[in-house]
Amino acid sequence: MNTTLLKLSCPDQVGLLAKITSFIAQWGGNLTEVHQFTDPKEGWFFSRMEIQKDTLQCELEELRAAFTPLASELQADWSLRRADARPKVVLMVSQLGHCLADLLWRWRSGELAFEISCVISNHDTLRSLVEREGIAFHCIPISKETREASFEKVEELWREANADLVVLARYMQILPSAMCGRWPARVINIHHSFLPSFVGANPYHRAHQRGVKLIGATCHYATADLDEGPIIEQEVVRVEHFHTEQDLLRLGRDCERLALARGLRYHLAERVLVRGNRTTVFRD
Amino acid sequence: MNTTLLKLSCPDQVGLLAKITSFIAQWGGNLTEVHQFTDPKEGWFFSRMEIQKDTLQCELEELRAAFTPLASELQADWSLRRADARPKVVLMVSQLGHCLADLLWRWRSGELAFEISCVISNHDTLRSLVEREGIAFHCIPISKETREASFEKVEELWREANADLVVLARYMQILPSAMCGRWPARVINIHHSFLPSFVGANPYHRAHQRGVKLIGATCHYATADLDEGPIIEQEVVRVEHFHTEQDLLRLGRDCERLALARGLRYHLAERVLVRGNRTTVFRD
Amino acid sequence: MNTTLLKLSCPDQVGLLAKITSFIAQWGGNLTEVHQFTDPKEGWFFSRMEIQKDTLQCELEELRAAFTPLASELQADWSLRRADARPKVVLMVSQLGHCLADLLWRWRSGELAFEISCVISNHDTLRSLVEREGIAFHCIPISKETREASFEKVEELWREANADLVVLARYMQILPSAMCGRWPARVINIHHSFLPSFVGANPYHRAHQRGVKLIGATCHYATADLDEGPIIEQEVVRVEHFHTEQDLLRLGRDCERLALARGLRYHLAERVLVRGNRTTVFRD
Amino acid sequence: MNTTLLKLSCPDQVGLLAKITSFIAQWGGNLTEVHQFTDPKEGWFFSRMEIQKDTLQCELEELRAAFTPLASELQADWSLRRADARPKVVLMVSQLGHCLADLLWRWRSGELAFEISCVISNHDTLRSLVEREGIAFHCIPISKETREASFEKVEELWREANADLVVLARYMQILPSAMCGRWPARVINIHHSFLPSFVGANPYHRAHQRGVKLIGATCHYATADLDEGPIIEQEVVRVEHFHTEQDLLRLGRDCERLALARGLRYHLAERVLVRGNRTTVFRD
Repeated sequence: MNTTLLKLSCPDQVGLLAKITSFIAQWGGNLTEVHQFTDPKEGWFFSRMEIQKDTLQCELEELRAAFTPLASELQADWSLRRADARPKVVLMVSQLGHCLADLLWRWRSGELAFEISCVISNHDTLRSLVEREGIAFHCIPISKETREASFEKVEELWREANADLVVLARYMQILPSAMCGRWPARVINIHHSFLPSFVGANPYHRAHQRGVKLIGATCHYATADLDEGPIIEQEVVRVEHFHTEQDLLRLGRDCERLALARGLRYHLAERVLVRGNRTTVFRD
Repeated sequence: MNTTLLKLSCPDQVGLLAKITSFIAQWGGNLTEVHQFTDPKEGWFFSRMEIQKDTLQCELEELRAAFTPLASELQADWSLRRADARPKVVLMVSQLGHCLADLLWRWRSGELAFEISCVISNHDTLRSLVEREGIAFHCIPISKETREASFEKVEELWREANADLVVLARYMQILPSAMCGRWPARVINIHHSFLPSFVGANPYHRAHQRGVKLIGATCHYATADLDEGPIIEQEVVRVEHFHTEQDLLRLGRDCERLALARGLRYHLAERVLVRGNRTTVFRD
Repeated sequence: MNTTLLKLSCPDQVGLLAKITSFIAQWGGNLTEVHQFTDPKEGWFFSRMEIQKDTLQCELEELRAAFTPLASELQADWSLRRADARPKVVLMVSQLGHCLADLLWRWRSGELAFEISCVISNHDTLRSLVEREGIAFHCIPISKETREASFEKVEELWREANADLVVLARYMQILPSAMCGRWPARVINIHHSFLPSFVGANPYHRAHQRGVKLIGATCHYATADLDEGPIIEQEVVRVEHFHTEQDLLRLGRDCERLALARGLRYHLAERVLVRGNRTTVFRD
Repeated sequence: MNTTLLKLSCPDQVGLLAKITSFIAQWGGNLTEVHQFTDPKEGWFFSRMEIQKDTLQCELEELRAAFTPLASELQADWSLRRADARPKVVLMVSQLGHCLADLLWRWRSGELAFEISCVISNHDTLRSLVEREGIAFHCIPISKETREASFEKVEELWREANADLVVLARYMQILPSAMCGRWPARVINIHHSFLPSFVGANPYHRAHQRGVKLIGATCHYATADLDEGPIIEQEVVRVEHFHTEQDLLRLGRDCERLALARGLRYHLAERVLVRGNRTTVFRD
């Protein structure tokens, strides 16, 4: 069934949902899924609606045009798109392939609906894994000296790809703050700890030293502040005294894969709405 | 903040949410929480709305009267009540006190908002636990011979209490089918297995024999068919080869307490909508 | 660090652990990991020990010969092998590739240590996924008429491969009972439900109909009795009313992958000891 | 079945387990449960053994005397006690009663085997909850001015009670460092966050602000460094955008209860071995 997605956030007011749903009903739209959340502290309204496309008595462009005056009145941040549009995604990796391999499988099998524009890495290690899928692979090494120029090249590739989204699938390099700032809520990172535990480098090593009984992974938007961006999804796994640091790495890989795959899924389906440093996630 | 709760289910149609939310907006009602679910297979619509009471320009009775024509038009099954009304609940127990003690604490601390009309048991074991809280305790023994008469007495106590809900908090007796039939979606049971695994008696014993690696508990509405009623909530816990049957009983107690407390909470807050043998649960 | 693995089960007796560990100490063996479990009901002793190889003052064959008299005295079922020996595994699949792809990645990356003798399928769908890894792929279709002959061919391939283990990675065909009987505790299956819930066909469909709040997967040894074999590992995931049957299939895939990968890992490292229909699993 | 518990840690060496188990076998002791863990990094050996009491050909005192020379040789930190001895515990609370009520129920029902010497609080709020169980309740208010003197009184009560263990069941006051230092591994705290996330005050508030998707609780030994002591057990629960800070408090209460009850259980059964800032926990 073909679906049109409305995503919207705006200041709360009485009658808001009535206004929006009445607008959709007016165009014949059958709502198959509706989520709304009103943040009482912020007085902010978040919503996501799935409209059955063949009930709509107009095309997407016309609906957008018709909705614009209402959206302006509501001071809304909004988007309206076909559910089956496939966002263009650039994947960034380093030498660890577990997240990449997982995403490739979910992409290949159609579980996650997106187009892979290309894969960029600072190493050549994962080239064959990527190229055998018919996907372009760019190796852009990062060294202390070349850092600035290298990231310019990376960002140029993002722009050339016309990327809707960038996924740092264990990229292990810190993006320049300014670069993150230019792609707000469009760069997703998987951090290998249960944030805010073990912000920064070597989280598994530090988790082992601290003797925690659970480790985890965090899927979040990359922002200028390292590891401080809005969290989309987290996953944890129980560990015990006999688990070595190597065991934590192994167990953590499954957490990372799951948290990243789910976070990416929510983002691709317009299920994540960001405000400040918090996300509203209408999970499926 | 005082809140009015609307719970509603009806056949799906285009413009349904617009109609309902417009009705509420018309009376000035500010929606603070809205859930809806449309079951695509059944073509059925389920919804629960929280309306900020002090924004409503009328009393509850007037709102009910005004909503009735629309509800009829929609062929809706619905209720409209104050969120702070405290349902009257009868607790049924046998000799195991863990669920009872847990509910008593959550009730006493105000975590769960309900009134305890009385506690009924087929044993006298838990009398002091109940009476020290200032709650009436009735012991109605059940034997093969007295079964029918005993359950008549039990049901009479339910009626006298004007009970909105009965909770079988490890009651361990099978209610007569006809009795369940007279209290549809008003009797909640906690079953000590992860249904439909180990339907019937001695689930922990059978779980141990089968060598499962997870055990659980199920909170469900009691229906004429034993252990087959609509499921509200389930909880599981990991077990290992070294856990004896006694260990499973112990670990299971925590599952039972949690599943029952959560299921009851959802029910009390009108978050559970039943249709056929399935529940829609708008969790909080 | 190179390690020698001792796996043993026998009737319990006083001084058992002392006898075994004294034997190992006598040969200079440093124990780096010791697990034991005594089943009080059965009076049975299960143990697994990791011995640091370079501390042993003899070769594996010599150690085996030396241990044999003690093992006989104890009436033990036992094995002694190098930890880094790579068991030969035959993978059986049908048309669903998620478990296969997951195992291939864990195999390729070295997370799971085994050799893939070949992949056998009743369809040609997954051929390229397998062959691009340099692994032999055999398509043996199964129809009502050819069933018997086809399974003879399958078993012949198992024998030719000299398989230590067969993994049914969503094979979707029921093996002949006699065939299972000839490979006791050497055929691992992943069942797409939380057994004993939904034994048999279409578990996700039935889980959806029953309205359960958790679904799962079970990794177990295949035995003559379908879905009744000893359970090695289980995994569950929470589901809600809005999850369609298709959603359960999707969410279940991650459960299946994890339960199978973990179950297989435990088996490969000699961490699973079977007695009757129960397993002792010394997890890592 | 009556059981004798041996708990021991010492530097690792070849033949260690053989020496210890041979000693026990020599006295006729039947081992019903044996755990050992060798920390490869530290070269340290940890073990806990359950010996069936009626198979031992001597009394506990005699066994202790006989074991002492071997223990000295091994430079072991060890204890040998009856499993059914009931440690004397002082409970410390403030105004939140959920952990206290939970422990009281587990104590009363015999699920946790210990004696409650008394309950100490800085408020009078929970007096009746305690006294109706026939347990002494001491209210020792803590103010800035009286702090030092008050804690002297508290510690005097600990000493008078001859306490084996002190449990801070949401005591909400920071113990003086020196006081913690005098009771090493004998003061258990429940911290209301998933440490090391949100060390310090108001963890639920900060968790809400950070927008995490999981919250938790940590049971650990109190040490001079606040919230930095060895972790015994942790528990987490999933949260979503719609959960207010009040909801986190509510959901967290169940985590706290479970983590504390389990941590305490492990400690009481001599299942926790501490070395540096890490614990070895032989869970049951």
